[in-house]
Amino acid sequence: MAIELKRSGTLFVLVAPSGGGKSTVLRALLDRITDLSYSISVTSRPPRPGEVDGEDYSFVDIEAFQSMIERKEFYEWAQVHGNFYGTRRDAVEQMLADGKDVGMDLDVQGAYAVKGMKPDAVTVFLLPPSMETLEKRLRTRDTDDDDVIALRLRNAADEISRCRLFDYLVVNDDLDRVIDELAGVVTAERHKSLRQVLTVRDEPGLEGLLDQG
Amino acid sequence: MAIELKRSGTLFVLVAPSGGGKSTVLRALLDRITDLSYSISVTSRPPRPGEVDGEDYSFVDIEAFQSMIERKEFYEWAQVHGNFYGTRRDAVEQMLADGKDVGMDLDVQGAYAVKGMKPDAVTVFLLPPSMETLEKRLRTRDTDDDDVIALRLRNAADEISRCRLFDYLVVNDDLDRVIDELAGVVTAERHKSLRQVLTVRDEPGLEGLLDQG
Repeated sequence: MAIELKRSGTLFVLVAPSGGGKSTVLRALLDRITDLSYSISVTSRPPRPGEVDGEDYSFVDIEAFQSMIERKEFYEWAQVHGNFYGTRRDAVEQMLADGKDVGMDLDVQGAYAVKGMKPDAVTVFLLPPSMETLEKRLRTRDTDDDDVIALRLRNAADEISRCRLFDYLVVNDDLDRVIDELAGVVTAERHKSLRQVLTVRDEPGLEGLLDQG
Repeated sequence: MAIELKRSGTLFVLVAPSGGGKSTVLRALLDRITDLSYSISVTSRPPRPGEVDGEDYSFVDIEAFQSMIERKEFYEWAQVHGNFYGTRRDAVEQMLADGKDVGMDLDVQGAYAVKGMKPDAVTVFLLPPSMETLEKRLRTRDTDDDDVIALRLRNAADEISRCRLFDYLVVNDDLDRVIDELAGVVTAERHKSLRQVLTVRDEPGLEGLLDQG
């Protein structure tokens, strides 16, 4: 092939309200799209049952998290419902520079921060099928008392009302369908002309023309 | 479900140089995505062997085509290599208004015209894998003499040099892979937040918030 497309790495951000299922969806998406890289988040919150340090999150204590903030090691960080969450800047930037696409899941605050710093990041907002479903998911998680759940639901309603600030909207009802739709988003974004550099080999007529672009 | 997404129809335009295989690709895409509608083009050129009137094109004579131009019946029309090609405006607009997505294949001139009139149309440029492949395809078609083929190749080189004016770039080498990629583009565009209207039923807390959007 003499006409080829090349591009740098793209950052894909899954955004959802608390309880919106973004980590589950990201994990399934990484299983489907095996050349999508993942940068695990750092958090100061204690592991939930079943969560593994270095796999689900990098778990650190609050003091360690705060000194990482001071050393400006985070791409974005946020305090949500009393806990700190952050994404290490060096790791993500290195993967993108290497031409790797990176997937991450963030809360709405974190996604705003990343989109502000990297306007070419692709943001997908996962909508719950209904507020009732969202409440059920929060209760099933069984980690929060009623006051915290009520606060999360009020925040979620507010975040959903501004979901159109993000690039894509996907209703998170059936996991297989959601992954099909997200795989479509990744495929499409990989072919956006704005992300492409056209490479031409052994095409004397074209080389001159393409140098202009 | 109480939180739903609705949207109006989207126009998907496949663009390629002459001989770039856009009709073959569109036909395969319509087979894959069965809810994508198709508006056949009108042309004044004579049918090629195997082409069927009303299926591949609506074939008319030059006089009929010109009176359709005078009656402003075309969404876009162009004269390419001595033949007229056009897309009927009323048919496409009716399908989009009905909420149907429409696929069409156009030459570069036609795609410029449509994108100018409908900036939310999605344009995908099909790149040949090489100029050699393009020349082979033009010769296999066996309808043009050497002068016409040379002219088509010069035009193609010029069009390829400006391919980044279109929204997406796809290298047209393997048909199955191309259709996978185009299906991804259709899926992604269907989930763009800018195309969505959020509909909320029986969610008193959300209804008020979403009315603002």
